[in-house]
Amino acid sequence: MKPSTPTHQTWKPGTLLYPVPVVLVGCGARDEKPNLITVAWAGIVCSDPPMLSVSIRPERHSHGIISRTRAFTVNQVTRDLVRAADWCGVKSGRLVDKFREMGLTPVRASRVDAPLVAQSPMQLECRVEAIHRLGTHDLFLAEILAVNVDERHIDRHSGALRFPGTQPVCFGHGAYYALGECLGTFGHSVRKAKGPPGPRRPIPPGRGRPEAAP
Amino acid sequence: MKPSTPTHQTWKPGTLLYPVPVVLVGCGARDEKPNLITVAWAGIVCSDPPMLSVSIRPERHSHGIISRTRAFTVNQVTRDLVRAADWCGVKSGRLVDKFREMGLTPVRASRVDAPLVAQSPMQLECRVEAIHRLGTHDLFLAEILAVNVDERHIDRHSGALRFPGTQPVCFGHGAYYALGECLGTFGHSVRKAKGPPGPRRPIPPGRGRPEAAP
Repeated sequence: MKPSTPTHQTWKPGTLLYPVPVVLVGCGARDEKPNLITVAWAGIVCSDPPMLSVSIRPERHSHGIISRTRAFTVNQVTRDLVRAADWCGVKSGRLVDKFREMGLTPVRASRVDAPLVAQSPMQLECRVEAIHRLGTHDLFLAEILAVNVDERHIDRHSGALRFPGTQPVCFGHGAYYALGECLGTFGHSVRKAKGPPGPRRPIPPGRGRPEAAP
Repeated sequence: MKPSTPTHQTWKPGTLLYPVPVVLVGCGARDEKPNLITVAWAGIVCSDPPMLSVSIRPERHSHGIISRTRAFTVNQVTRDLVRAADWCGVKSGRLVDKFREMGLTPVRASRVDAPLVAQSPMQLECRVEAIHRLGTHDLFLAEILAVNVDERHIDRHSGALRFPGTQPVCFGHGAYYALGECLGTFGHSVRKAKGPPGPRRPIPPGRGRPEAAP
């Protein structure tokens, strides 16, 4: 094994894992003002039960709400929602009504006591299972109890999600990006050669993950 | 608040948080065969100390290695590395030498006892701080101790990372995608209007995050 990489500079530690998701997290109990916080420190952490994590600074308004209600929603950011997501990431719900200011519609979630963003095509309803203090951020581990998908993005015949049609957005090194070209589907490297990877076929929800056991 | 979303179908719970990163995780102590596993259940969990998480099934070969060495590397997948990443996600290091089979070069990390992928432009060296059992997957919480960046992607004058030039890849609903159009930089919604968001300006490492406090 080579002892070093002459092609690389070693930098001091930083959060340079890219791209990451960017999501609108909805919170607030039934009897209070619905709130939003934009989070890029988010990800799936378990397939079954389906779980995700979001990390939030203790000083953020939403941190207190979610710690109390133990519930939040995760709403996919689309191209049309980038400006709202950016704004909800820098403003505080202590001072403004983010739903109203951004023209977003709060909708009650079916399984948890938190608001969904009606304009988002993919909404996850999450129940907090554990909170871990890490440093600047606390890690909220949550089970996904329900998934709401905009019917306009569901194929009528197969019932599958037409994912690229949702116009998803990701975040990397200080900027928001649309998705680009499809570079192949999960498992393409071990399928019999049929030419270069083409456009993806519809895949049922929850199928096709790089971390799946061989 | 509206009581329901007539535009959405409610599905049973699933891991529909997209897009997510896809990374090559390197593991294996100095005196053993270097190994790789591809992980999409990965994300940043804390800014300071810089920390990330990866989730791995206990039955995977890499799970045993990382549990023992408490060390791994996270190597950004690029367009050129998609096929290798896909292959390393479905094969087992118990049976094959993934570095050799994919023509990848293992390089010793400087701060942890694990191999880097020389061909990856951005490599994170990680020390495991905690392991949490969740269900199908165990969550590895790790501190990022060093970041190695390919000099070809560093601007000579500013010293900043030219991120889109690394040709990053993300994962969503069973397929790998390139990054597309830049939709704006962090904070664009509160800056004085100067026309539509243009190409991003270089941002020093670790700057510019949606979850930053207002």
